[in-house]
Amino acid sequence: MGCEMLESGSGGSVKGFRFSAVEAAVKKPGRLDLALILSDAPTVTAAVFTTNRVKAAPVLLSLERVTEGVSQALVVNSGNANACTGGQGMADAAETARLVAEGCGIAEDLVLVASTGVIGKPLPMERMRAAIPALVHGAASRSMEDVARAIMTTDTFPKLETRAGEAGGVKYTISAVAKGSGMIMPNMATMLSFVVTDAAVEPAFLTKAFRKAVNVSFNIITVDGDTSTNDMASVMANGMAGNPPICEGTPEAERFESLLGDILLCLAKQIVLDGEGATKMVEINIRGAVSTADAKKAAMAVANSSLVKTAFFGQDANWGRILAAVGYSGAEIDQDRASLYFDDVQMVKDGVFAGGDAEARGTEILKKRKFSVTIDLKLGEGSALVYTSDLSHDYVSINADYRT
Amino acid sequence: MGCEMLESGSGGSVKGFRFSAVEAAVKKPGRLDLALILSDAPTVTAAVFTTNRVKAAPVLLSLERVTEGVSQALVVNSGNANACTGGQGMADAAETARLVAEGCGIAEDLVLVASTGVIGKPLPMERMRAAIPALVHGAASRSMEDVARAIMTTDTFPKLETRAGEAGGVKYTISAVAKGSGMIMPNMATMLSFVVTDAAVEPAFLTKAFRKAVNVSFNIITVDGDTSTNDMASVMANGMAGNPPICEGTPEAERFESLLGDILLCLAKQIVLDGEGATKMVEINIRGAVSTADAKKAAMAVANSSLVKTAFFGQDANWGRILAAVGYSGAEIDQDRASLYFDDVQMVKDGVFAGGDAEARGTEILKKRKFSVTIDLKLGEGSALVYTSDLSHDYVSINADYRT
Repeated sequence: MGCEMLESGSGGSVKGFRFSAVEAAVKKPGRLDLALILSDAPTVTAAVFTTNRVKAAPVLLSLERVTEGVSQALVVNSGNANACTGGQGMADAAETARLVAEGCGIAEDLVLVASTGVIGKPLPMERMRAAIPALVHGAASRSMEDVARAIMTTDTFPKLETRAGEAGGVKYTISAVAKGSGMIMPNMATMLSFVVTDAAVEPAFLTKAFRKAVNVSFNIITVDGDTSTNDMASVMANGMAGNPPICEGTPEAERFESLLGDILLCLAKQIVLDGEGATKMVEINIRGAVSTADAKKAAMAVANSSLVKTAFFGQDANWGRILAAVGYSGAEIDQDRASLYFDDVQMVKDGVFAGGDAEARGTEILKKRKFSVTIDLKLGEGSALVYTSDLSHDYVSINADYRT
Repeated sequence: MGCEMLESGSGGSVKGFRFSAVEAAVKKPGRLDLALILSDAPTVTAAVFTTNRVKAAPVLLSLERVTEGVSQALVVNSGNANACTGGQGMADAAETARLVAEGCGIAEDLVLVASTGVIGKPLPMERMRAAIPALVHGAASRSMEDVARAIMTTDTFPKLETRAGEAGGVKYTISAVAKGSGMIMPNMATMLSFVVTDAAVEPAFLTKAFRKAVNVSFNIITVDGDTSTNDMASVMANGMAGNPPICEGTPEAERFESLLGDILLCLAKQIVLDGEGATKMVEINIRGAVSTADAKKAAMAVANSSLVKTAFFGQDANWGRILAAVGYSGAEIDQDRASLYFDDVQMVKDGVFAGGDAEARGTEILKKRKFSVTIDLKLGEGSALVYTSDLSHDYVSINADYRT
C-alpha cells in the first residue's frame, strides 16, 4: 500500500472543482484557517458524521443538508469547533453558509459547513464575515493542498492524497484531504476529511462505497480514544470527467471502491503518524477471536490502553500489559492459549513468555517507528486491525496547554 | 469523611492478628517485598477479585480457596505479578502457600496468596523459598503498616486505615491496607487491599457488606482505565474481640458496614491521590442522568478521557472536553440542557458557556489539588460518583520506564 505524500497542488487536477483558503484570524495570525471547496455544478454527495451525542453546530447543519445527497460547496474553518455554542452556534453556521452561497451565487442549502478547534467559544463572526468575500473571490486561486493546510489544528503536516482511475475508458481523479490529530477515536472518524472527484458516480453507490471506505480507514484508527464533537468526512463527485456513471456491481465500481479505500487508509495512517505527540505508529492485529466483534473490542482495548501506549513510547517490550488489555476488553480469551508477536518475533506462546532471545529481539522491534503487534487468541475466526500511536510526554504537553 | 493517615503500628491493635514483612529481593534491594498476615485461629473470610479475564496465578488460587469462606493467613509479594506465567506460575503460587502453611503449622488451604508487580516473569522462587522462614519466624514482629509498605510498587506512600467499632457492648477494631497506583480502573478494584478485624461477623453478612463497601470505594476510582490481572481485596474477621457475631439487619451491622465503607473509601481516595504521576484528585459527579447505568457510563468516560485528564494537569478549565466525553460515553444527553460546575462555579448552562467571570473563577478552582466536576444532565434521577486523577508527564515517565 504505497502512501507517498504528493506534491503541492496535485489536487488541482480534479475537473470542475475550485479551491480557496484565507486567513480569517480564527487561529493565530499567519495561518490559513478558512477554506472553500466549490464545484462548478451541483455534485452527488455523501458524508458521515461523529457518533458523539454532543454534536457541533456545523455537524448538525451539514447532517441535515446532506440527506438530499447533493451539495456544491463546502466551507470549513479551523481554530474554533463551534461546538457547545447553542442557538448562536447554529445561527453562525447557517450565516457562514449563506454568505458563501451568496458570494458564489449558488443555493444556500447546497453549502456544507465544517469546523474544528476549541469547543465552547462562539465563532468570531465579525472576522468570518470580513474574510468570506476574499475566500469566495479567491476560488480557483488555491489548491487542494491549501485546503489541507487551512484545516490543520495541532497537525504538524498537511494530509493530502490523490489517485487516478478510469471508468468506461474515461480517466478521472480522486483527491482528498484530512486533518487529525487529537480526540482521535473513530466512530465515525474523529477528524475532518473531504474527498472530491470528477468521476460520475451513481448516488446510492457513492454513499455505500464511502461508508465502506470510512469503515476500513478512519474507523480503524485511534490516538487517544476520545471521539470528537466535530467529526465529518464527505465526498463530492461532480461527474465532470464525463465518464458513464459508476454503478454498483461493475468492475468500475470495484476499482472506484478500491481507490477510495486506498486513499482514505493512507490519510488515516497519516493521522496516526501525526497523532498528538506520537513517535510511533503501531498496527494492532487480533486473530483467532470468537467473533469479529470480540476481535474489535480486543484491538481497541489494546490500542487505547495508556499503559500499553506508554510502554510503546518507552520502547519497552512489555507484552504483559497487552494481554492484560485484551483480558479486560470484554473479548473471550483463554489465557493459556494466546500467542503474541511484535512483527514476526513471537513473544508469547500458550499464554507465557516464549523464551529464548525474544526479549532482546522484541525490544529491537519496538525501537522502530512503525511495527505491528499481533495477538492470536486461537479460539475462532474473528479478526480485526486497528492503527494506534504511542502516548508520549508531548501528548501531555500539547493537551495540557491546548487553549493557552 | 475524615481520611487522616494513621501512625505507624496502629494496625497492631486488631486482636489475634500477627504481621510480618521481609526483603525477599523480588524488588530492588532495601525494600520490603514479602508480607504475611496471620490470624491465631481460622477466620471468616470474604474476597473480591479482578474481572480481567487474564488472571494471575495467585488470583486463581485464592479465588478457589476463598469459596469456603475461611482462611487463616495471607501471603503477598510485590515486584512480580506472577501473571501470564502458566502452569509454572500456578505451581509457584501453591508452593509459596504451602511453605507458609508448613512454617505456621496451619492447613495449606487456609493460606491465601496475592502478588503485584511486573507481568510475565516467573516468581524468583529460590529467593522466595529462602525468605519464607524469616517471614514466618517474624510473625508479630511487624505491624500492619509494614504490610502496607511491603505491597507498594510505584506507590509513593503506604496506605493504612484503622477504625474502632462496638457491637453488643464489645469494642472491636478494623484495620486495612491498600496499594495502587497504575492499572487502576476498578472492576473489581485494580489493586490490592487486605482488611483484618477482630470483630465476630456472621459469614454471609461479611461477604455482603464487603462487596457493598468495595462497590462504593475501590470500584468508583480510576487512574488510567486499565484493569489489572492481579486485583484482590479481602477481609478476615477472626472474632477475637469476643463480641456476639454481627448479623444482618441489626444496628451493629449498619455500624459495621458504615465503618467498612468509610475505611475502604479513604483507602480508595489515597490510591487516586497517589495515582502514578497524579497531581490532582478530581471528584466526577453526574446528576440528572436517565438511569444510574447511564450516569456511571458518563462519569467513567469523563474520568478516563486522556484529553480531560491532561486539561486537569494543565489546570485548563476546558469544559468542552468534558461535555464531549459525556457525549461519546453512550449516555443519553440533550446538549442544550446540560449544566457543568467546577466545585460551585457554574461553567455551562443549558449546554453553553455560562459567561460572566466563570472562566477566571473556574481556572482558580482547577489550580487546587482536590476539586469536583459536576455535570447535571437534567434528564432524570440517575447519579454517579467517580474519583480520578490527572494525566501528567510523570505518568508517562513512570510507565515508559516501568520495567527498566
